[in-house]
This record gives sequence, C-alpha cells and structure tokens, in this order.
Amino acid sequence: MKKVKFQAVKGTRDFYPSDWAFQKWLFAKMREISERFGYQEYEGPILEPLALYEAKSGEELVKKQTFILTDRGGKKLALRPELTPSLARMVAQKQEELVKPIRWYSIGRRWRYEKPQRGRTREFYQWDIDLIGPENPEADAEIIALACEFLKSVGLTPKEVKIKVNNRRLMDFKLSLIGIPKKKVGEVFAAIDKRPKMNQGDWKKYLSEIGLDELQIKDLTGILADFDFSDESEELIQIFSTLKDLGVKKYVEFDPNIVRGLDYYTGTVFETIDTQGKFRSILGGGRYDNLVEVVGGKKLPGVGFACGDVVLKEVLKEYNKLPKLKVKTARVLVTVFDESLYRNSLKVTCQLRKMGIDTEIYLEPAKLDKQLRYANRKSIPFIIIIGPEEVERKSAVLKNMKTGVQRTLSVEKIIEEIQ
Amino acid sequence: MKKVKFQAVKGTRDFYPSDWAFQKWLFAKMREISERFGYQEYEGPILEPLALYEAKSGEELVKKQTFILTDRGGKKLALRPELTPSLARMVAQKQEELVKPIRWYSIGRRWRYEKPQRGRTREFYQWDIDLIGPENPEADAEIIALACEFLKSVGLTPKEVKIKVNNRRLMDFKLSLIGIPKKKVGEVFAAIDKRPKMNQGDWKKYLSEIGLDELQIKDLTGILADFDFSDESEELIQIFSTLKDLGVKKYVEFDPNIVRGLDYYTGTVFETIDTQGKFRSILGGGRYDNLVEVVGGKKLPGVGFACGDVVLKEVLKEYNKLPKLKVKTARVLVTVFDESLYRNSLKVTCQLRKMGIDTEIYLEPAKLDKQLRYANRKSIPFIIIIGPEEVERKSAVLKNMKTGVQRTLSVEKIIEEIQ
Repeated sequence: MKKVKFQAVKGTRDFYPSDWAFQKWLFAKMREISERFGYQEYEGPILEPLALYEAKSGEELVKKQTFILTDRGGKKLALRPELTPSLARMVAQKQEELVKPIRWYSIGRRWRYEKPQRGRTREFYQWDIDLIGPENPEADAEIIALACEFLKSVGLTPKEVKIKVNNRRLMDFKLSLIGIPKKKVGEVFAAIDKRPKMNQGDWKKYLSEIGLDELQIKDLTGILADFDFSDESEELIQIFSTLKDLGVKKYVEFDPNIVRGLDYYTGTVFETIDTQGKFRSILGGGRYDNLVEVVGGKKLPGVGFACGDVVLKEVLKEYNKLPKLKVKTARVLVTVFDESLYRNSLKVTCQLRKMGIDTEIYLEPAKLDKQLRYANRKSIPFIIIIGPEEVERKSAVLKNMKTGVQRTLSVEKIIEEIQ
Repeated sequence: MKKVKFQAVKGTRDFYPSDWAFQKWLFAKMREISERFGYQEYEGPILEPLALYEAKSGEELVKKQTFILTDRGGKKLALRPELTPSLARMVAQKQEELVKPIRWYSIGRRWRYEKPQRGRTREFYQWDIDLIGPENPEADAEIIALACEFLKSVGLTPKEVKIKVNNRRLMDFKLSLIGIPKKKVGEVFAAIDKRPKMNQGDWKKYLSEIGLDELQIKDLTGILADFDFSDESEELIQIFSTLKDLGVKKYVEFDPNIVRGLDYYTGTVFETIDTQGKFRSILGGGRYDNLVEVVGGKKLPGVGFACGDVVLKEVLKEYNKLPKLKVKTARVLVTVFDESLYRNSLKVTCQLRKMGIDTEIYLEPAKLDKQLRYANRKSIPFIIIIGPEEVERKSAVLKNMKTGVQRTLSVEKIIEEIQ
C-alpha cells in the first residue's frame, strides 16, 4: 500500500475535540441570544447555483472569492460564500405559507477564497440572523440590539467593541447634494467600503477614475469626516432612540464610513469593530428590502446580520476573554482488573449507562496504573475498580480522582454518589 | 433589477424551522448516545484533497460519486463523501500527542453524486463514531453495542431493524478454501456487495468475468446462503458473546453477505437494515486497521460506523416512529397597544429577556386581534397586553393562550408565573 502524508487543504481547519469545545460554546451563545429574541433555527444547502450570488451579492464576492464547481451535468455551482441569498430563495419559495414576520437564524459553514491570515480562513462558520417582514426602524433596532446582547454575552464591553451604524438612504441623499448622479452611487459606495484598505492618494485617484471631480472628492471626504449628521435621517433617529430604550445605546455609534460591501443593502447598514482597530469587522449587516423579490418572490423587506467565528475568536483572545473550556468527558472510567473479570466490569458499565451516566470502560488488558493514568490524562472525575474481592462482595471501589478518596460501595450507592 | 426564480440545487435540501426540528432531535440523540459511551465530538474540513479518497475509499465512491472542484491554484479538491479518511488524516497528524484509545464522534454533512430518490439525497448529514487504538474484538463489540443503543433510543426494535455482522478475515479464509486467490478477493468482495442490486444471472456472469469457474461460483453461492459458520471466527465468537453481556444481542445477527463497499475494511464489518428490506442500509461500519498508516501515520487500528440521516428518517416514518416535534418558539409575545405605548411594551420585553425568558415583541402597528392571531399561529404560549390602564397601574395583562385565562399582574408576578 502506498503511504502518503496528507495535509489539510489550505484555509480549512481541523477541529480536534479541544478546538471543538470553543465552537460548541460559541454556537450555544449564538443560539441562546437568538432564541431569547424569539428567532427560530433553519439551514440551507451548502451548494447553490452560482447565479444566485451573481444576482445581488456583489462582483468581488462572486468573481474573486467564490469556490465554484461544475457538477456532472455541467451546471455551475458555488460553495455558499454567504447565506442571505439562500434565505431569500427559501422565503420566496414558500412566501405565502410562512407566518410573518419571519424571525430566523442559522449557524453553518461558508467559504471564501481569500488569502488565509490571522482572523481569516477560507472555510469558516457564520451565524446569520434575519427579521423579514417589517420595514419600520424598530425592526432594524431589534436586530442591532440582538447583536449588542450577543457581544455582551461573550464578555465584550462597549469599550472594547462598537457597532457603527449608517444608512444608505441617508448617504444617497448626501451624495446627491454634492452632485453625484444616482447611477454612480453604487461605485462610490464600493469606493467608501474599500477606503480603509487603500492609501489616501490611491483612493482619491480611484474616485477621480470613476468620474468624481476634485470638488466632489473634497466634499465626499468632508462627509466621511463628519460624525454628526445622523439626525438628518428619520430612520436613524428612531433606531438610536429605540436602542436607548433597549438599554444597549453604549454599544452603538453613527459612522458615515460604514456602507458595507454587498450590493443588496438598501437602508440601515452596520458593522461591529474592535475599538483598537486591529481586526476586520466582527459582524456586519443591514436592511435589504428587495432581495426576496430579486430571487423570484414578491417584494418583502428584511434586515439581518452575519457574524463569523474566526475574527470573533481573535478579538476574544486579544481582550483575554476566551473562556476556559474543558472537553466533555465520561463521568466514570470502569477499569478492568484482569481478563477473567472483564465481564464483571462490563456489567457495571452497562448499569451505569442505563442510569444515564456517561461511562467508559478500559478495553485492553493493562495494569491498573496505566488505566488510572489514562483517566487522569482525560480528566475523567471518577474511576471504578472491581477486583476479585469486590466481585465476591457484590460491590466495587469508587475513587474520586480529584480528592483521591476511595470507598468500597454497592453499585447502587455508586450510582447515587455520581449522580 | 432582473427577477429570476431560483430553485435549490438537485439533491440538496432546504431545512425550514419545521424540518430543522427533526434534525435537532436526531443530532441530540446521536450526541447523547455517543457521550453515554464517553466519546468526544470533533469536526474535519468539508474540503479535502481528492487524493485522500483515492488512497483507500474505493473506486466507485471516488470516480462516480464525488463532487470534485479545482481550486484557483489548480488543485483537485473533493467535497467529502465520507469522514473516515479525514479522521485518519487528523489522527496521523497528531498521533504522538493524542491520548489513546481515541473515542471520537462527529455529525456533519457529506456529498455523493447519486441519483436522488426516496431515502437518498446528494447532500446529507452523517454521524461518524470511531474507536481508535484497541484491536481486540471487545472494541468492535463496543461500537456495535453503541449502534444498538442508538437504534433503541430512536424507538426502533430488534423486530424492525437488525445489525448484520460479518468478518472480512473469516471471508478471506472461506474464499481461500474454494480456491480463490488472494489478489482476487477484493473483486469478489465488491461482487458480494453489489449482489442485492443485480439479478442472479447477471451476478453469476459477472463472477465468471472476473475469473471464477463454475464450481467456485456454486461454492460461493453456498457460502453466502449459510448463516451458521460464524463460530469459525474467534473474533466473531468473542464479539457476539460481549454483545450478549452488553444486553443488545437481540439486535445482532451473523450474515455472510455483508462485506461493505469500502476498500479500507480489514476485519469486522456490519450493516443495519430494516427487516422488511425496503430501504438501503441505515448505518454501516467496520474495522480498518491500516487506514491511519495509509494516510501517513504509524499503524493504528480503528473501528467505527457512519449513520446517515436520510434513510433513518424514512425508516422511522415507515414504522410510525417519527417524533411529534414542535418548533421552539418564544415563551411570550408582548403585544403593542398603539404607537404611543410602544416604548412601554419594549420596556417589559427587556425585563423579561433579562430574566432569561424568550420573548418576542410585535413590531408593526396592528390591531390586537392580528397580534393574537400571530401568537396563535406560532404557538406562543403566553401573551402580554399593556394598555393605558395598565401603564397607569404599573401592571400588565398576562394571557395564557392555551386556557384563555387572562389576569392583570405586576411585571414581577408575570415573570414568576412564566418561569
């Protein structure tokens, strides 16, 4: 047999049980907060027609970052780079029968072909949460409040992270005031979104290439430096006031530089960043009032956000907020005294399991010392020893691995003790 | 904006919250039984080098059924059709530091390009569970017992499902007795595995094509019709006796026709079938003593099985064992009396959520009737009404949607009541 040393594919991750413990903790937090607000879990396919993303996600995501495969029938499929288009497709498909408003969330994998680096992998988990139906600002506020409660639940404070909020309709208006025509707005939004990754000179050159004159560039720079015009938007006034009532105002601030990279946003947009500015955005979202219609349904407004696991983990690490997690182990290891007593140990193992106690049995003949070492290395809290004497007396020795105390008890007593 | 009606990709599934409820129930059962035996959860990547499967999975799976994509660097990747090769790769990568025996399980998606039909989709979930380290038959018995306990836990009885067990080493021996040379054994195993899908004539023709003479074909047919030679295998004797001690013997029987389709099995093999023979195998597995070595590690024996979600669901449906599941909803809907009292409802909503009560608020202005109808359609058990009188008296009306009883109470009392 040929022997080859295989490596994981670049940008993918292996989750050993010790790594998976963090994912489980994180997913539990996401589920807890989602359900606290009455959201229900769903899941879409991982493979979607490539055209679904071409419809509205934005050129960069589709052309540069999507993993594409051609199925055996010749159709172009994508490994989903994001979930919102699948959500819109699913809603459009059962639009009449679904109870509205739709409050849904999902936790699953996405793929983007980017250069792997700190805080970025090609295969990652993302939590998506969406509120579909209402188009009033109270809906936007609920979704943003939910994001705040989540940040709080993982231990991040308003000093460490901020949700920066803006509104595309407000920005449309501001751009119109400086004479930028409607059909250029999309390109200007893309330019605003890319600005933090470019140097100022290049950025201005880019704006001039897409047709802005010098005065417009100056005016735009001025707009983006002004953090004090959110009250020109009725929606933003309403959102910030509702967020105050929801007790999360401290997490939130207005920022005209946030417009988001995806094409489908129509109104409110927001992004969570670490206040030190060390990492990419932790979560981001906004209002998309046309997406359900674009993928084949009737018009149905929506608002939501997505939060990846990779940046968040880095931010938690940075602020020393990573939880100390233990991998879940069996409560008990039943040791095997020698081969002739294997069946006795097996019987006790069965009794414990029947009572709902997570129990391992040591399978291979080994000295007791070795079996204890194994329990220790796996942090199993109790072990049971059944030697010839115990068999005789219909009992077993229970040893608490933490205290070292060991007692001879009936199996019934042992079960009580452990439960 | 162009409007296109998008469909899900053939063989994939959309899980609306009502569908996802079943998946959650099933995954919880899989986790419960895995942990009852002391197994720990892990997860591998969904993308692996295609070559990982070429190493040992078997020609049919790789050539005909794998979704293949070429990444932007030109490398051939596969959407994992099964998890065992990833498991072996992960174990080989950290072979020295991992505590042995390794008891691991995983629940996730796999892909196989097959014709979608009842009990078969191209994208499906699978539970994998493996015990790596021991090579004694007690390990095989533990894994098979775990499968039995799982079947029991989802309500399937030994009359409805059976685990058919065989041993490849025993079959090697039987084939050698009828003069089949070692290098042909793999092909004969593949033929045995394919037999149920072929007619008898075609099957015999196929055997003759791969070089068996008429006597050998007759002898082989005789071996496969004999259900009474398991005691020629020491391993099988030991396994069946241990399964008796583990109290699950009723679920298990010997069957020489079970050899499994994957190339990497070396010893015990088994498969769970419905006793009516209506469906494909529910779960299947076996011993693979060389796989860790093949993917680049040192030799380390293993045994495990995989159980898909699609066939299992069909079998549960067939036997009327599908659980009646309710989608988890909020415990309370806080209604909004009119726009001027929205803030009062919001305040109560916050109080409830702070106390850990899953709470929805009705966001859009609507008549109370409409809000009640919404709570009813979503089966939310309690609603809260806050009108001008309640605001005055610092109280709220709590209505139990099941009994119809409604009372005016303080918010503190309401929280007590709901908890």
